[in-house]
Amino acid sequence: MAPLPLIATMIGDPAGIGPEVAVKAIASGELDRLCIPVLIGDLGVVKRAAEVSGVTRALQRIESVGDPGTQTDVIRVLDPGGFDVSSCAFGEPSAACGQAVLDWTRVATALGASGRIQGVIMGPKNSTSLKLAGSKAVAGTPAPGTYMLRMSGALRVVPLTEHVRLTQALEMVTPENVLKVIRVLSDSLVKWGLPHPRIAVAGMNPHAMFDEDRERIVPAVDAARKLGIDASGPAVPDAVFRHALEGKYDAVVTMYHDQGQIAVKTAAFEGACTVHIGLPYIRVGVPHGTAFDIAGKGVARHRSMLNSMKTAAQLASGSGIFGQV
Amino acid sequence: MAPLPLIATMIGDPAGIGPEVAVKAIASGELDRLCIPVLIGDLGVVKRAAEVSGVTRALQRIESVGDPGTQTDVIRVLDPGGFDVSSCAFGEPSAACGQAVLDWTRVATALGASGRIQGVIMGPKNSTSLKLAGSKAVAGTPAPGTYMLRMSGALRVVPLTEHVRLTQALEMVTPENVLKVIRVLSDSLVKWGLPHPRIAVAGMNPHAMFDEDRERIVPAVDAARKLGIDASGPAVPDAVFRHALEGKYDAVVTMYHDQGQIAVKTAAFEGACTVHIGLPYIRVGVPHGTAFDIAGKGVARHRSMLNSMKTAAQLASGSGIFGQV
Repeated sequence: MAPLPLIATMIGDPAGIGPEVAVKAIASGELDRLCIPVLIGDLGVVKRAAEVSGVTRALQRIESVGDPGTQTDVIRVLDPGGFDVSSCAFGEPSAACGQAVLDWTRVATALGASGRIQGVIMGPKNSTSLKLAGSKAVAGTPAPGTYMLRMSGALRVVPLTEHVRLTQALEMVTPENVLKVIRVLSDSLVKWGLPHPRIAVAGMNPHAMFDEDRERIVPAVDAARKLGIDASGPAVPDAVFRHALEGKYDAVVTMYHDQGQIAVKTAAFEGACTVHIGLPYIRVGVPHGTAFDIAGKGVARHRSMLNSMKTAAQLASGSGIFGQV
Repeated sequence: MAPLPLIATMIGDPAGIGPEVAVKAIASGELDRLCIPVLIGDLGVVKRAAEVSGVTRALQRIESVGDPGTQTDVIRVLDPGGFDVSSCAFGEPSAACGQAVLDWTRVATALGASGRIQGVIMGPKNSTSLKLAGSKAVAGTPAPGTYMLRMSGALRVVPLTEHVRLTQALEMVTPENVLKVIRVLSDSLVKWGLPHPRIAVAGMNPHAMFDEDRERIVPAVDAARKLGIDASGPAVPDAVFRHALEGKYDAVVTMYHDQGQIAVKTAAFEGACTVHIGLPYIRVGVPHGTAFDIAGKGVARHRSMLNSMKTAAQLASGSGIFGQV
């Protein structure tokens, strides 16, 4: 049997619900046979989260991911140090919280890039804390050559662009850009265990019936097919997501953010999550924020976090079974 | 008790499934207590449709809608004449079929405009037949000041523009145009029995977070509110349809065709139909085509046609109960 994948979760902003839902998810036991989970963050924050959540599974500080052990009845914590939980109030954004998230993200990302862990979950960050910490990163701008794949039930959609003004996003619909995302998506799906993914490429215009749909999308689809990718399109935008839901496609490339997000959020299957593709490791986001209003009350629900962790484990296993959480 | 509304159905292209689903819908008996249905089209075509469909309800030719009678066990047909069913083969587009559809549509439209009937259903037309008949009308271009409202389950969405290139559609997002559709939508919903409709206006950009969302949509929403309309927006495009489904809004104004159509077609509730608003009468479309491949075989399903007829009857009654088919 292949060893279980090592899946690290950056616990998110210490003042938010991230640490709570992370400990609850691991304590649920549902991950025990799927992966070896590790939390990245401050041990004191994790301890506090366990206390307010009534989680009794023992915490185990580990010094590196090199030898995490195979024990299932513990919550492993890799604490890079430098954070003081006693100065962190629930529900209050701060520079210290923002800085901690930046530090922990750096640790998680480096571990992923080094190949020492197979997957990373990014717990919920708070944009105010990040700004207070001086971060200039803009949410919704993945690095060039990487994309955000949304998985929700049988729907898997990835847009060419994220938080870009729609008129600008449409200018970025070029054969080159469309081909790039098709290739990254196909590579990811193959790695995750779908040897011949069926990829639909949505058109840009109503009913995909304008010259742009032919001129900008057809060449990309043709080029992808020459590379052996089972791509098709331009698909009629208002029909393709229903077809994907019905099993006709494994994933849909969309021409702009809302095209696919409207489908995903309207269908709203439980267990939706976002996978950052085009990276050498699996990186999964959690589809909720820090929920400062309920942080520290022990009432935050951990289902989304658990689903993100499960999805990372499934993808890392390369079994071709995923999104079934 | 108010008299039942008179609802006329233009049977659609005689070579398609329109006549079949129309007779089946009336013969189902489900309309008997909701409206007085009348078919507009050739009696011979309707007779043939009843035969291939195994419909035994008697056909009754009426000369005008002035005195349709209240009998429920008949299928009333208003035949403007001029069509020869013997020269019309199932599944074959022709100039004669296209011309018939144009003629019958004119009759139905004139009856609606005159106030002598309360609602019109447009059976499925065939674009090839229409072209052969010399029609230059382009599908998906409603007359100025009128809009196509899609009703599907609890979702009711109406776009500013229909089959328009997306870059052009975005140019047409102006405060004036947005206000126009809000007003027509509000007037329609009030007439149908919702005294204070809650109307969400979707933003144009991802998360409605760009200057255009503020500059082009906020002034329209403000102006509508000054007119006493419960409008709000710009709403986050990828969230507003889920909120509408959950009952937060009665209808959503969308900035371009696919924005709402993706939501409607992905959610895909049974009984979806399109209501042409901004006309002095209720005009409902059927969400399927002529299905030439199965025309004349008696297998076409009439659920969509029946739902369209029911919806027209519900809207005409002004009871505020609609979309519950």
